[in-house]
Amino acid sequence: MTIREAARMRLIQPFHVMALLARARELEAAGRSIIHMEIGEPDFITPQPLIDAGVKALQDGHTHYTPATGLVALREKIAGYYQSRYGVSVAAERIVVTPGASSALQLVLTALVNSGDRVLLSDPGYPCNRNFVHLLNAEPVALAVDAASSYQPLSQQVSDSWTGQTKALLVASPSNPTGTLLDEQLLRDYHAIAARNGGSLIVDEIYHGLTYDGPASTALAVSDDIFVVNSFSKYFGMTGWRLGWLVAPRAVVPTIDKLAQNLFLAAPTPAQYAALRAFDADVLAILDARRNEFRARRDYLLPALRAIGFDIPVNPAGAFYLYANCSRFTDDSYGFAQNLLEETGVAITPGIDFGSNQPAHHVRFAYTTSLQNLQEGVRRLAERLG
Amino acid sequence: MTIREAARMRLIQPFHVMALLARARELEAAGRSIIHMEIGEPDFITPQPLIDAGVKALQDGHTHYTPATGLVALREKIAGYYQSRYGVSVAAERIVVTPGASSALQLVLTALVNSGDRVLLSDPGYPCNRNFVHLLNAEPVALAVDAASSYQPLSQQVSDSWTGQTKALLVASPSNPTGTLLDEQLLRDYHAIAARNGGSLIVDEIYHGLTYDGPASTALAVSDDIFVVNSFSKYFGMTGWRLGWLVAPRAVVPTIDKLAQNLFLAAPTPAQYAALRAFDADVLAILDARRNEFRARRDYLLPALRAIGFDIPVNPAGAFYLYANCSRFTDDSYGFAQNLLEETGVAITPGIDFGSNQPAHHVRFAYTTSLQNLQEGVRRLAERLG
Repeated sequence: MTIREAARMRLIQPFHVMALLARARELEAAGRSIIHMEIGEPDFITPQPLIDAGVKALQDGHTHYTPATGLVALREKIAGYYQSRYGVSVAAERIVVTPGASSALQLVLTALVNSGDRVLLSDPGYPCNRNFVHLLNAEPVALAVDAASSYQPLSQQVSDSWTGQTKALLVASPSNPTGTLLDEQLLRDYHAIAARNGGSLIVDEIYHGLTYDGPASTALAVSDDIFVVNSFSKYFGMTGWRLGWLVAPRAVVPTIDKLAQNLFLAAPTPAQYAALRAFDADVLAILDARRNEFRARRDYLLPALRAIGFDIPVNPAGAFYLYANCSRFTDDSYGFAQNLLEETGVAITPGIDFGSNQPAHHVRFAYTTSLQNLQEGVRRLAERLG
Repeated sequence: MTIREAARMRLIQPFHVMALLARARELEAAGRSIIHMEIGEPDFITPQPLIDAGVKALQDGHTHYTPATGLVALREKIAGYYQSRYGVSVAAERIVVTPGASSALQLVLTALVNSGDRVLLSDPGYPCNRNFVHLLNAEPVALAVDAASSYQPLSQQVSDSWTGQTKALLVASPSNPTGTLLDEQLLRDYHAIAARNGGSLIVDEIYHGLTYDGPASTALAVSDDIFVVNSFSKYFGMTGWRLGWLVAPRAVVPTIDKLAQNLFLAAPTPAQYAALRAFDADVLAILDARRNEFRARRDYLLPALRAIGFDIPVNPAGAFYLYANCSRFTDDSYGFAQNLLEETGVAITPGIDFGSNQPAHHVRFAYTTSLQNLQEGVRRLAERLG
């Protein structure tokens, strides 16, 4: 019997890097040394105080469901963090705790976007974003961005692309794969365009905290009407726990709540209890030390890759990625990544995972491995490409 | 600024019991004694060996992402459980570990159901099911079921309801809210009808393990083409950990995998490591003792409610619910539940949460509280209604 799959599944691509990762693991299992610069998660395990808090939650028997919007105490802690770190007042009632930022993104898009609507997205950008739009039978509209605008959409570009069917603009700061930020003026411009057109601005801030040349602006400082997605995965180092959050305009929270009840019931309880510790001074000190380590890696890798001949025209200010033009070496970044893996054991992500804007001329390097590993990776790349 | 919500949100109802639960908590906070018979989760915390395994996973630093389909070792354990408990061979490659059964259900429906398609569902039934269909802009088709068919759709009814637009039949065994099972012959009939029409059969088995008059049949014994949703929440007592699984036909697993990568990246890692212990003999012994406790509660509550005047025409064989006709007392089960809460402190779930098939004449009792509490609840109900 043949199963007929839904038509939308043809529009949804797997992460192409997964095939490379599988091959890298295969080579490793066969004894090859692999330098992983393809992986989009911190190499650090969760800070020990958060692990200890998770252990205590389990030992205390916190194994039942929480409310769909999360523990009230955690929503209050997150609100407090916006106050202390950004000086922005966000009511705890506007914060919805989710099983990872993926669920937060799904909540907001599902609540807003009708079948046939359009959503504006940066290209290159995080691959899941356009897939979430496809899942709703809506249309992702790629805004091609390049180095001239720090890989973020120009206000004019957003304005020109907004049609009667456009429901939202989704941007990220810091961005994946380019690591660039949005300044507050650009956020104000985006918000004004969305408001003028009766649409919404959604800002992915999941790499907040991981910025290396000063703090990032939060869109929550601009307006209470903006949807902000954030996560405990990256800066807080809690990837495997699956915990994130959404900040929504107050009027939409009841809708988000009923959607959360249906989509996932609640975020994982032990993770929520652990995260109650995330904003304490000792934990933030660990996280900031890790941020400094990421900065040191960036500061090493950026000039080293440029010296080999990769063109990285913008200094990325955040996240843990370098988005490099590799057209000096290839017109086929996917084959290039495959060859580098086989020949040098260096694993990187080809541009195709981030959109259709010159993907064959780009690759992404993640500095989610030790400085020593990065140095060895650079040595191998220089030897092969130099 | 007014946010325009997506049209589908008007079709999605919140769980009405949440309002009752909130009121019950309010009364409790004010010092009233409340007997909770509205809650759809076991009152037991997670068995200690699973908690210990979760603690060890955290202490061992298992805080990174797993593959999107779950730990290979866990998929193999689940496959082994189908062999040992049911005598059914299920390849580990067909098992996809998910963040709760909700995600498993979303995976299968999203992979199969187009906008405009129809999905057949039992009414009464689990409220999220029809909402997942709405999220895809598809149409849930309610099959009204009653005591004459043990609250499960008749083969003829399924066959007569299947049209060219019908993509799937979704049934549950044991069912929520009625606690009734599907026998293997009925599963064979459903599968034959789905196969004849080029559609799919999806079976919710999340209450498997919690059956009191003998084991339930798994649909996996009938055919490799059937989608089965299951969970670590109910029998295994891991609600707050958010862990479930989907068994899919082999050909669809790559599609499910890429969808899982996009929708949730992976199930929570500590939960997956804890669940590796779930199938060990000492844990199963704890779980079976708990099942016996649930049986004792059912065996007490069923005749006690009948004696008061609730009509429960079918002996429920599983889950932890009794679905009762309350038309002797009211033509408005929602107001009835509200009044009982205010006047007696007994909280139950009104029929409206389970569909549109005579909801005003039905309520659901959950025996997810101690026998002593159930006895006190029955005493109060008898005093008020007797």
